[in-house]
Amino acid sequence: MKTRAAVAFEAKKPLEIVEVDLEGPKAGEVLVEIKATGICHTDAYTLDGFDSEGIFPSILGHEGAGIVREIGPGVTSVKPGDHVIPLYTPECRQCKSCLSRKTNLCTAIRATQGKGLMPDGTSRFSYKGQAIYHYMGCSTFSNFTVLPEIAVAKIREDAPFDKSCYIGCGVTTGVGAVVNTAKVTPGSNVIVFGLGGIGLNVLQGAKMAGADKIIGVDLNDSKEEWGRRFGMTHFVNPKKVTGDIVQHLVALTDGGADYTFDCTGNTTVMRQALEACHRGWGESIIIGVAEAGKEIATRPFQLVTGRVWKGTAFGGARGRTDVPKIVDWYMNGKIEIDPMITHTLKLEDINKGFDLMHEGKSIRSVVVF
Amino acid sequence: MKTRAAVAFEAKKPLEIVEVDLEGPKAGEVLVEIKATGICHTDAYTLDGFDSEGIFPSILGHEGAGIVREIGPGVTSVKPGDHVIPLYTPECRQCKSCLSRKTNLCTAIRATQGKGLMPDGTSRFSYKGQAIYHYMGCSTFSNFTVLPEIAVAKIREDAPFDKSCYIGCGVTTGVGAVVNTAKVTPGSNVIVFGLGGIGLNVLQGAKMAGADKIIGVDLNDSKEEWGRRFGMTHFVNPKKVTGDIVQHLVALTDGGADYTFDCTGNTTVMRQALEACHRGWGESIIIGVAEAGKEIATRPFQLVTGRVWKGTAFGGARGRTDVPKIVDWYMNGKIEIDPMITHTLKLEDINKGFDLMHEGKSIRSVVVF
Repeated sequence: MKTRAAVAFEAKKPLEIVEVDLEGPKAGEVLVEIKATGICHTDAYTLDGFDSEGIFPSILGHEGAGIVREIGPGVTSVKPGDHVIPLYTPECRQCKSCLSRKTNLCTAIRATQGKGLMPDGTSRFSYKGQAIYHYMGCSTFSNFTVLPEIAVAKIREDAPFDKSCYIGCGVTTGVGAVVNTAKVTPGSNVIVFGLGGIGLNVLQGAKMAGADKIIGVDLNDSKEEWGRRFGMTHFVNPKKVTGDIVQHLVALTDGGADYTFDCTGNTTVMRQALEACHRGWGESIIIGVAEAGKEIATRPFQLVTGRVWKGTAFGGARGRTDVPKIVDWYMNGKIEIDPMITHTLKLEDINKGFDLMHEGKSIRSVVVF
Repeated sequence: MKTRAAVAFEAKKPLEIVEVDLEGPKAGEVLVEIKATGICHTDAYTLDGFDSEGIFPSILGHEGAGIVREIGPGVTSVKPGDHVIPLYTPECRQCKSCLSRKTNLCTAIRATQGKGLMPDGTSRFSYKGQAIYHYMGCSTFSNFTVLPEIAVAKIREDAPFDKSCYIGCGVTTGVGAVVNTAKVTPGSNVIVFGLGGIGLNVLQGAKMAGADKIIGVDLNDSKEEWGRRFGMTHFVNPKKVTGDIVQHLVALTDGGADYTFDCTGNTTVMRQALEACHRGWGESIIIGVAEAGKEIATRPFQLVTGRVWKGTAFGGARGRTDVPKIVDWYMNGKIEIDPMITHTLKLEDINKGFDLMHEGKSIRSVVVF
């Protein structure tokens, strides 16, 4: 079949909207009509050439929502007409990781996904006879895409696509980091470093979990209003703190936070986040993706005296199991998404969505097909 | 009263055996007759001048066992005749840390203990009219010592002092790191870096917890026999591994260990211990004390993909609650101590005990009064 898609022919060039060829689903695969997709920093990271493992030409996008239109042989868990969210972290329920019950990092299709291919080692997309690579196993910047069955989460049909697509990455990453990775408990004190889209979702996750002090830290004062909208109780701009920011935060939390979250990707901030934890039990969760080659460091004394250093990917969420729950939380009003969708665009304007993000003018831009 | 003690008059000098003056216990304090004391690397670290916060003149020693001989006003939890182990990590059961249920790092008397003083800000020891400082709140290199009530663990009376004293530090630190901090579960794969006294106790803790593969890593081949005696199933000498030690260990554990323990104090080894953990869930516990100023480092990717970096002090054990349990485990044969006590000395020969440790000729030397 033919489908309209935004193709990244090479790094550092705008996406081009073209008609590409798409093969139908093979065994264990499904064809999904994408109804909406968010534009995430990770897409830009790849498009801007920062990802040394980025592959071109490819169809980017990994934060989508849509409808199953066709299933390949052997597919049993979804059927045409089902509403789904594509999963860049699949959930096979059979591999060592899935069976461990300790991680969401399913390894079933990791090798081929990393090469931009379907599990059988080929691509479904092509343009003028040339293969176009998949991206993060999703390629949601295409009106239709093919996904492994284990890489779609079936969701309720009353969830609006142009909002629930954000659950495919940002919402789940932020809320999940609180709920699945840190397991924040009521009455906790929480510090969130970096109030972009992920940070705001960590804030609302902490609020939902019943945290007491929810402190947001950002260099940009305009983030204070955003933060307060999603549950932040205190705002700290490090540029306006006299003295050491860690000491300031430790004092503000009576000895340090129970949980801290880095949503900046800055390794210096990651260290501050760890050291702002309470002696004896504070846990720091790294969410942000650091620049290639950068390392985190601290004195081992910080850990020996009880602080714990962790990270999270896709909010520790098992895609097929946990993503539908987060959709429920949204539909039941336990978390908000609508105010975070600052821009809704047509596919033709997708490059404008990247511009808005680079200029810091959007929380989330969503493309609607 | 007078008591015989080994006094550290200054750093880098042998201890001197003298009669010192000891004031009786004040409110909330107890007088303990020390029957036996281990000589630990931490005592040597202070005596050799490496501890920038070391205070002299002082009476070192923090790994003892003895009998309560007198109690001060208000003491209710122990009485004369009770057998006890002094606790350098006390357990007041009233401070924020004790009440958190999340840490053993009681803060009730931390400030004065760090200054070599009793909680009222004075010392009980003196020599020729000059104050002698307490050490780690214990000063077990004295036949009699005074301790806060919250800093003694009451233990069963049939436990031999010359063995149970080792539970005052080394045994609890190693076994506790497994049981309290890592919470190793049956069937786990465990790697222990450094097979000194702490490492051997981690090994036997892992064995008791039902671990499958228990891998010991040491540069000294003579440690293999010691390790196997305490539950080690595989020995790895990094000097004899061709290629990367981390990759070697990851292969040996089918993807990485569930739990790793650093018992070396070497920050490079601490990094290897983290990176030898299994993707998704492996946890690395730092036990060793690093040189002043040294830092640990890794790529944040290691944490984002599910490894957890932790530390432990006194094995995460609450002194008054958990130490008596470990004494029971020893008496019931669940853990061994006797073969680790390689040398038993009189107080007059205490400096020989330090020599044996420096020369790597002892696992643990114990001084018996």
